[in-house]
Amino acid sequence: MNAEKAVKTAQPGDLALLVGRDRKSFIVRLEPGAQLHTHRGMVAHDDLIGIPWGTQLSTHVGYPFLFLRPSTDNILLDLKRTTQIVYPKEAGYILMRMNIGPGCRVVEAGTGSGGLTLVLAQAVHPTGRVYSYETRPEMQQLARKNLERSGLAEFVEFKQRDVAEGFDERDADALFLDLPNPWDYLVQVHAALANGGFFGCILPTTNQVSQLIGALEGAHFGLIEVEELLLRQYKAVPARLRPMDRMIGHTGYLIFARALIPLEE
Amino acid sequence: MNAEKAVKTAQPGDLALLVGRDRKSFIVRLEPGAQLHTHRGMVAHDDLIGIPWGTQLSTHVGYPFLFLRPSTDNILLDLKRTTQIVYPKEAGYILMRMNIGPGCRVVEAGTGSGGLTLVLAQAVHPTGRVYSYETRPEMQQLARKNLERSGLAEFVEFKQRDVAEGFDERDADALFLDLPNPWDYLVQVHAALANGGFFGCILPTTNQVSQLIGALEGAHFGLIEVEELLLRQYKAVPARLRPMDRMIGHTGYLIFARALIPLEE
Amino acid sequence: MNAEKAVKTAQPGDLALLVGRDRKSFIVRLEPGAQLHTHRGMVAHDDLIGIPWGTQLSTHVGYPFLFLRPSTDNILLDLKRTTQIVYPKEAGYILMRMNIGPGCRVVEAGTGSGGLTLVLAQAVHPTGRVYSYETRPEMQQLARKNLERSGLAEFVEFKQRDVAEGFDERDADALFLDLPNPWDYLVQVHAALANGGFFGCILPTTNQVSQLIGALEGAHFGLIEVEELLLRQYKAVPARLRPMDRMIGHTGYLIFARALIPLEE
Amino acid sequence: MNAEKAVKTAQPGDLALLVGRDRKSFIVRLEPGAQLHTHRGMVAHDDLIGIPWGTQLSTHVGYPFLFLRPSTDNILLDLKRTTQIVYPKEAGYILMRMNIGPGCRVVEAGTGSGGLTLVLAQAVHPTGRVYSYETRPEMQQLARKNLERSGLAEFVEFKQRDVAEGFDERDADALFLDLPNPWDYLVQVHAALANGGFFGCILPTTNQVSQLIGALEGAHFGLIEVEELLLRQYKAVPARLRPMDRMIGHTGYLIFARALIPLEE
Repeated sequence: MNAEKAVKTAQPGDLALLVGRDRKSFIVRLEPGAQLHTHRGMVAHDDLIGIPWGTQLSTHVGYPFLFLRPSTDNILLDLKRTTQIVYPKEAGYILMRMNIGPGCRVVEAGTGSGGLTLVLAQAVHPTGRVYSYETRPEMQQLARKNLERSGLAEFVEFKQRDVAEGFDERDADALFLDLPNPWDYLVQVHAALANGGFFGCILPTTNQVSQLIGALEGAHFGLIEVEELLLRQYKAVPARLRPMDRMIGHTGYLIFARALIPLEE
Repeated sequence: MNAEKAVKTAQPGDLALLVGRDRKSFIVRLEPGAQLHTHRGMVAHDDLIGIPWGTQLSTHVGYPFLFLRPSTDNILLDLKRTTQIVYPKEAGYILMRMNIGPGCRVVEAGTGSGGLTLVLAQAVHPTGRVYSYETRPEMQQLARKNLERSGLAEFVEFKQRDVAEGFDERDADALFLDLPNPWDYLVQVHAALANGGFFGCILPTTNQVSQLIGALEGAHFGLIEVEELLLRQYKAVPARLRPMDRMIGHTGYLIFARALIPLEE
Repeated sequence: MNAEKAVKTAQPGDLALLVGRDRKSFIVRLEPGAQLHTHRGMVAHDDLIGIPWGTQLSTHVGYPFLFLRPSTDNILLDLKRTTQIVYPKEAGYILMRMNIGPGCRVVEAGTGSGGLTLVLAQAVHPTGRVYSYETRPEMQQLARKNLERSGLAEFVEFKQRDVAEGFDERDADALFLDLPNPWDYLVQVHAALANGGFFGCILPTTNQVSQLIGALEGAHFGLIEVEELLLRQYKAVPARLRPMDRMIGHTGYLIFARALIPLEE
Repeated sequence: MNAEKAVKTAQPGDLALLVGRDRKSFIVRLEPGAQLHTHRGMVAHDDLIGIPWGTQLSTHVGYPFLFLRPSTDNILLDLKRTTQIVYPKEAGYILMRMNIGPGCRVVEAGTGSGGLTLVLAQAVHPTGRVYSYETRPEMQQLARKNLERSGLAEFVEFKQRDVAEGFDERDADALFLDLPNPWDYLVQVHAALANGGFFGCILPTTNQVSQLIGALEGAHFGLIEVEELLLRQYKAVPARLRPMDRMIGHTGYLIFARALIPLEE
């Protein structure tokens, strides 16, 4: 993905982001002969291939668009999905709190639409690896497509399995659960993590948070922390700077902990 | 940093995190013969070297501590500093919004205490590189020490120079300014960034935000966005879950934009 | 309004609140022979008149509704309006911060749709009085209707005038401006307020806040404070307690100050 | 309280607020011969008696102070207390949501230090009345003193009793519980409230909120709502407007409901 950065003009097969003056955006893979039809007119891919990223262009009816490489978080928000995804504000914080970077081995369940999988793969590639578990074949299929579209599928090992049966991995650097009943899998999680390894989870309700942190205390986890992030966006008008009228009120509670060696060992 | 992960016991030279039951924490580099003196008793490094990460141990007076590898954000919050640092919640979001990952070439000014430098280096290493500018030699010296302590200094090129004179880099993937007057350097920023490259900035006051976004509009930047993150921490007690009484009310406004090819070219 | 409280059954002329199981609500004035047509069926006013408040009833198609007296904030959110209104969270805080209660003489400009006028009249009646200024006759007419509907119009003196010409009142306990350029009227505000009187204002942008507080400093006001309230609503489900997905991100910045005797006097 | 407003100079027996340039404030009752000793020098009450409210004065060592009448929320934050008080942001919102104004009959338990009692008495006086229950005699004594100091005690009826035994009142307009186990008293609450009357409660933990709203559903209450208010304060510097570094992260969850007539009656 980043290896392509030296190329300064858009090439067939590249993912491209087009953003209209009204901030409506489109992500497409450039193909000779294809057309992008927007609410503000058409753009021929052939007119995009070969031009530099960062160009300000127009549709055939003259509506102005910016032509950019998409960032991982642009792709994340654009994913084809049938489930709630982890948002960029949480995804970035998860990377920080769970120490996930180049070379890490990270386990995840469930895969869902692959939103967090994408972020994890981007963060650990090319030397690290993501192991992603999911029971529903159609979700796994969707996630695989999403990862392939982003060019990051080769860094992910998809597994179709109920994590109640345990994870294949041992000594994982970090393990993230996005499941409604994470307290049921803490023995399996502990077995998969390295000593001192990073555990993370996202949950929508306070009741689930209470149940999980109660279970973590009894399952050899320490440094248990519950946190929440609120993102406030502003209207970027120099003479009339103000927060947006509406904001996302809740995406989920984040729970973090470290796997400990049991005291009795 | 991550290459060491297969080693399961603490070795001389490793950074170690000790966290007491009261959540007070210490980060030390393990040295044979050294001692850590805490508010709850002493721990001899020799008693730590060779034991597994994730061990639950005690000081010589019996106070329980967890023994862990520190994460990058543990190190970030523990940095020796003489300036305000970028906090983990903003740092993780900056990585996401500016598409910073393995292999990226990222420019930063000013270096300050090196907090964001550390996060950037961890995210782009080993194939990427951080170019960090600072005018004050004593700040640069401090940041260099902080990076060396974390084992990431080799991925950072420190430059002592006023960015008014311009950046050496061209075609940078991303460039972040943590300076009080970023509007004064937008020509230099634009020259350093790749077409479509990611610009980011953090500013404490609304007046500065207004001035910056006004300047960005006239300096060939697009997709200008102003955002703010609020982190809410909870007391992790299963039967009495509640937010902490106090929270950080403000760390800074984040401004993001993309470098465009000027229309007249 | 409160004098009616002893009456326990709904009477012709009463304002009534009907709330469906889906939380959709209707406020109507009860009139013999009238009908309320909802998205879930019809209710005849004659079936409501004479029944006790707090009754759980059904539309003619069997959809359940609660039958309640509306609170002032129910009425506030239901006002016919052509302007942005002050929300209950700000309205209640304004009462507290500006010491507005029974017997107070409060000045307000502009009237707008009369939302804050309603709250002020409810708080100061029957012995206090609200003086409300507005330049647009059609807005004043709308506000007057809104106040009459609530039975509080007799406690309000509406004045159609540009406050640049000054206020008629002297020694007012409190004065609130909901105007885009409050800094232009501070001499007039100071003349209308009692010594030490309470000044308040709501403004949408940070630029306006900066301009106002700069002007207040030079116009014999002290204890200048800028505040903002965020309201977070939860889904009230016992086993799945969680914040609502969406929230209001911004209603306005509140500015409070006290009128001082100029030092040179 | 408000009847005194026409008096323009401070009189013996008045409550006075003195606020230093550093925002440190003092509330005193003016007594001939008394002295206020501050961290910035002394002020003789005799120098305050007879001077106009809103005067800018100095201590004997020349430190500038503002001389003002305190607002109810100034008094609230200054109360002698041994318990957590309800803050002005919640107090004002409680008035709005529970429709509490002049003439209302409001029941409250427990009294605690009398913070909310003060706000309720100020809002309903002189024709309304507050009935405040408390089991601990020393708390009731403290609250009584706090109310007397504010001149509002005559509008409050203090009762020393466990509310498990029931409230004396019937047809109350509103009833507020600030007790750790409100679910235990819902039968008593329902008996005291008018049909359709307003119930409110403040609770610190999510577990308590879940338990209360579950109980309300089974105890003939409707329109159950859970809300939370966050207050953000700004540094009021025109050229450097920004939120304060620290904020209160949690004061409590507010729960509101309306008393219904049971369906089976």
